[in-house]
Amino acid sequence: MAEGEFDLINRYFALSKQIPRQDVILSIGDDCAITQLKADQRLAVTTDTMVENSHFYPTIPPRALGYKAVATNLSDLAAMGATPTWVSLALTLPKTDSHWLNEFSKGMFEILNRYDVTLIGGDTTKGEIPTVTITAQGLLGDYALCRHQAKIGDWIYVSGTLGDALAGFYLNRDIYEGKKSAVGFDEDFFIQRNLYPIPRIEFGKTLAKYRLANAALDISDGFMGDLMHILERSQVSAVVNLEDLPLSPQLSAYYGREKAELMALQGGEDYELCFTVSDENKTKLDQYLAPLNVPYTCVGQICAAEDNPVIRLQRYKQEVNLSIHSFDHFK
Amino acid sequence: MAEGEFDLINRYFALSKQIPRQDVILSIGDDCAITQLKADQRLAVTTDTMVENSHFYPTIPPRALGYKAVATNLSDLAAMGATPTWVSLALTLPKTDSHWLNEFSKGMFEILNRYDVTLIGGDTTKGEIPTVTITAQGLLGDYALCRHQAKIGDWIYVSGTLGDALAGFYLNRDIYEGKKSAVGFDEDFFIQRNLYPIPRIEFGKTLAKYRLANAALDISDGFMGDLMHILERSQVSAVVNLEDLPLSPQLSAYYGREKAELMALQGGEDYELCFTVSDENKTKLDQYLAPLNVPYTCVGQICAAEDNPVIRLQRYKQEVNLSIHSFDHFK
Repeated sequence: MAEGEFDLINRYFALSKQIPRQDVILSIGDDCAITQLKADQRLAVTTDTMVENSHFYPTIPPRALGYKAVATNLSDLAAMGATPTWVSLALTLPKTDSHWLNEFSKGMFEILNRYDVTLIGGDTTKGEIPTVTITAQGLLGDYALCRHQAKIGDWIYVSGTLGDALAGFYLNRDIYEGKKSAVGFDEDFFIQRNLYPIPRIEFGKTLAKYRLANAALDISDGFMGDLMHILERSQVSAVVNLEDLPLSPQLSAYYGREKAELMALQGGEDYELCFTVSDENKTKLDQYLAPLNVPYTCVGQICAAEDNPVIRLQRYKQEVNLSIHSFDHFK
Repeated sequence: MAEGEFDLINRYFALSKQIPRQDVILSIGDDCAITQLKADQRLAVTTDTMVENSHFYPTIPPRALGYKAVATNLSDLAAMGATPTWVSLALTLPKTDSHWLNEFSKGMFEILNRYDVTLIGGDTTKGEIPTVTITAQGLLGDYALCRHQAKIGDWIYVSGTLGDALAGFYLNRDIYEGKKSAVGFDEDFFIQRNLYPIPRIEFGKTLAKYRLANAALDISDGFMGDLMHILERSQVSAVVNLEDLPLSPQLSAYYGREKAELMALQGGEDYELCFTVSDENKTKLDQYLAPLNVPYTCVGQICAAEDNPVIRLQRYKQEVNLSIHSFDHFK
């Protein structure tokens, strides 16, 4: 980074707001960070960028932005079944604001410390549009939950509930546009789901460790759009049962079942896992997943693709036609 | 990244413009990339961001931007003595422009392929200000060239020549501001030095492999400012001999010796290595470094710090006072 006032920013990240992992040999302050590797591990690496007015409103609480920028990357690691270990931060800001930086770093360290992940370095630069890029790394054994491994006959599962984060996005937009100020109890639930997604790390690690799932990914662009990624890469199709979609009681009550279903199908930023499980493994799921206290629901099944992979929606075995658009908030 | 036109961008990076390294198990297209690790390796990680109008002018050729964004990160790895292996790209652009993307990716793959480094993933996002963040990873043995390892009595060396990139920056600025159009032969040399820096990878690896250097870093903010980083972290001072500064014949001819010296001291973006060598190792340098055909020059010596680390400049043993500002182009 350039010399000058932006050097000051480093104190928000370099100071010991965390106990570094023991495998971190050299952290912030040199040309590179250095970490110690072990034999036969595999490294999982992911990068995600959040740009103001493309991924968040200027009114986002900085603590939420710091938290969420990390959470979305850890969610990618969870979707592989990896154990998150280290992250790097590239932060672009128009000016230094100590309150903002304090809150932003607080949100980051909150989630980093929770999962024993160390911030090992980064770059802080000056630029007109606030932009946060995180590169996260994790360690894997010899089995990973890839998108291309779905098999015909696999059952399709999702963790948690879908659509809440989209409801939260709508509320944040209304607040940003001045259409709304105070929010009620359920509304706050949606906002929290949007701002503080929970990466399903233990869940993903368990799926990989016991080889329970064939394919998996995290739902960031919306269930339908993300499921299509699995289908395309595995060259299979899917049947999804609308009556089985996991909806929070809050979402169903706020929007009614029909609208809530649509939001679950196309809403983004759920950061739940979508994964496919063979018939044989279906019976083992409870044994391994129940202790984690994360709900999961079977919502459909993988079938053979004819020409191109497609998703067939049905309700109580009757085919349903819905117009679905994938998630792209800011368009 | 958001769905839509920006998906198209992936084809500039996902298509096989490179032969992936054998240790890349899973590349672009899943939640994470996966790479295979070996026992007792160490991982070096660095991140650098370039923002339009903070780090480059809108007139920069996109091929140069792609090249330079990678080169500056590989230079950080070189400064540790690491072997670069994998990079991730976070690219923010206001719109998709196929010519621009083609040239940008060409510049990236040019340097990636030269050093057998694989692009393993990234994120492409929409935002008003073009911004490039690269996270680069490399592998290290059990010795790294850190900033805090300079010892009293060490000789201070730099690779290559200093100041040329700053001359190139001035020319690029004049071109951007319409003060200059055609450039001469020497001027083109400076511009190339600014746009296409050569990371000193084999040089850094050799220094680490044979433990020839104690401390090292790459010169990105200017020789004086960067040497201060070594001094501060090692709690030592330095004497620098102005008559020994390595200047290109082009720089001396263009600016005259005195101005060229100042540019060498404070000019940034040289991406040469600055390193310190014990008296004992000084005689071994030629044996290991000569085969690399990269010039290197002894420019001073580390001495004890009194209160705070300082750099004392001298010319033919006479102390010289110069007003030096560290490099920050765009201020």
